[in-house]
Amino acid sequence: MSLLVVGSVAFDALETPHGKVERTLGGAASYFALAASYFAPVRVVAIVGDDFSAKDKAVFHGRQIDLTGVEHAAGKTFFWSGRYSKNMNERTTLATELNVFANFRPTLPGAYCDSSFIFLGNIDPTLQRSVLKQMKCKPKVVGLDTMNYWIERTPAELRETLRHTQILMINDDETRQLTGEHNLMRAAKHVFKMGPRTLVIKRGEHGALMVHNNFLFSVPAFPLEEVHDPTGAGDSFAGGFMGYLAREGRINDQILRRAMVYGSVLGSFAVERFGVERLTNLTLREINARARRFLKLTAFKL
Amino acid sequence: MSLLVVGSVAFDALETPHGKVERTLGGAASYFALAASYFAPVRVVAIVGDDFSAKDKAVFHGRQIDLTGVEHAAGKTFFWSGRYSKNMNERTTLATELNVFANFRPTLPGAYCDSSFIFLGNIDPTLQRSVLKQMKCKPKVVGLDTMNYWIERTPAELRETLRHTQILMINDDETRQLTGEHNLMRAAKHVFKMGPRTLVIKRGEHGALMVHNNFLFSVPAFPLEEVHDPTGAGDSFAGGFMGYLAREGRINDQILRRAMVYGSVLGSFAVERFGVERLTNLTLREINARARRFLKLTAFKL
Repeated sequence: MSLLVVGSVAFDALETPHGKVERTLGGAASYFALAASYFAPVRVVAIVGDDFSAKDKAVFHGRQIDLTGVEHAAGKTFFWSGRYSKNMNERTTLATELNVFANFRPTLPGAYCDSSFIFLGNIDPTLQRSVLKQMKCKPKVVGLDTMNYWIERTPAELRETLRHTQILMINDDETRQLTGEHNLMRAAKHVFKMGPRTLVIKRGEHGALMVHNNFLFSVPAFPLEEVHDPTGAGDSFAGGFMGYLAREGRINDQILRRAMVYGSVLGSFAVERFGVERLTNLTLREINARARRFLKLTAFKL
Repeated sequence: MSLLVVGSVAFDALETPHGKVERTLGGAASYFALAASYFAPVRVVAIVGDDFSAKDKAVFHGRQIDLTGVEHAAGKTFFWSGRYSKNMNERTTLATELNVFANFRPTLPGAYCDSSFIFLGNIDPTLQRSVLKQMKCKPKVVGLDTMNYWIERTPAELRETLRHTQILMINDDETRQLTGEHNLMRAAKHVFKMGPRTLVIKRGEHGALMVHNNFLFSVPAFPLEEVHDPTGAGDSFAGGFMGYLAREGRINDQILRRAMVYGSVLGSFAVERFGVERLTNLTLREINARARRFLKLTAFKL
């Protein structure tokens, strides 16, 4: 089934111990769409400036990614610049230039309005909700990402959007901040009262934990010898996760578990190269082989 | 098969958000022995002072724990006092009084000298090696714990002891410090050059990771709603791990995986109550039930 994502498309300047790039395609929606496209058709709602060239767009070509919903506005594309520390456990933001993204008002092409699976990337909760209002049919599953900025500044708006969300996908700090509860199991109970019935906690190098009503599922991060660029790992995870759900077209315990694994698989590939590079040249064979390696990494018999 | 542990027996004063105790049995060897005793007979080599009463000793009674190797010396037992922060993610040491432990020279009773499985708790590497020298037969498996203090101050002695070690069980910071390598996969390769063929990295609330020549295995920490006292979690993990290996009497991939799970099971029980309390009233039924919950927490099918 088709999957709609709304979020940022950006140009990033990145510096890690493995190298430096001055301008590479980035933004949550880019990572998400590329990762998800290995599993299901993806419809993108985003905004870019007039510096976004045909060559930039070509990164998405040849895949099941629909860019009709990407608005081209006068001005520059969202730009982000960051530097990672030697061990890549710290990130310094050097520049954030919102540019055309500052005036982003998501508008869905008519053909998008029947999407069954929706992922509301990390943007203003009011804009996230405006996407839902444009849907003709009630979507099957709404996933949502957010961050400390919205938790602090627009708590009431975020609460309202969460009421329409089934899957909340945030990191452990955000979970604690949103709920005021340090213990993640108790925090999950708070989240369930806000609307979502599934909480996916992204923990970076420590993997991810899912709490879903009656069960818990934990998946480690894939232990890699070389991480070239951690940018976009969480968005690639979300893309793999939601893409797999959209491919299956329904949700049950086993499907949610596998979605966690495929999310982790796509996140682990993303960090192997700079920017979105690795996500553009994967094969299903590689994806499935790594999923089997996750099985070996975690399986035991009693 | 019988399992020998050398390490500290102590009295702890503990303060966590859930309460306070002025004097409770602690020390790595206490947690280790109690946890391991659910799986195999344990022989303890330690030292206590003349304040260590029959009542203190009684905690170990009625289990397969041999205390013949616990030396009673004139003076006070090792004392440690610590306080945990509100979220229990930080620990402040308030007092460390080595007392009789300062002059600990491990002496093995004759009957101990045929132990097949040995765990060298976190003490001076020279003393760890002196235990190995007292063995009549070459032990089947030697496990070892250490800490930043020995890595910094007695690196050569530690290296020599590691040459006789098969399983190194330390946390992620210690792994990085010992090898000078931040990436844990590359760090493992350094460790294998030092002697051990199995590296078990304890990661607290993030679980544990095992690297063993040709395979990797990751187990999460059990997500608990209430942690009463994190003291001894790592030592209980080590006890469950080594105890399970000793019960099986041999090592292969599946046995190592299960040892990781039983280690995590015992660690998760230990933190449910203050000090060693929970480790003294467990049943095999509870242990096996929690192991099955670890299976549910991690299992998926492709």
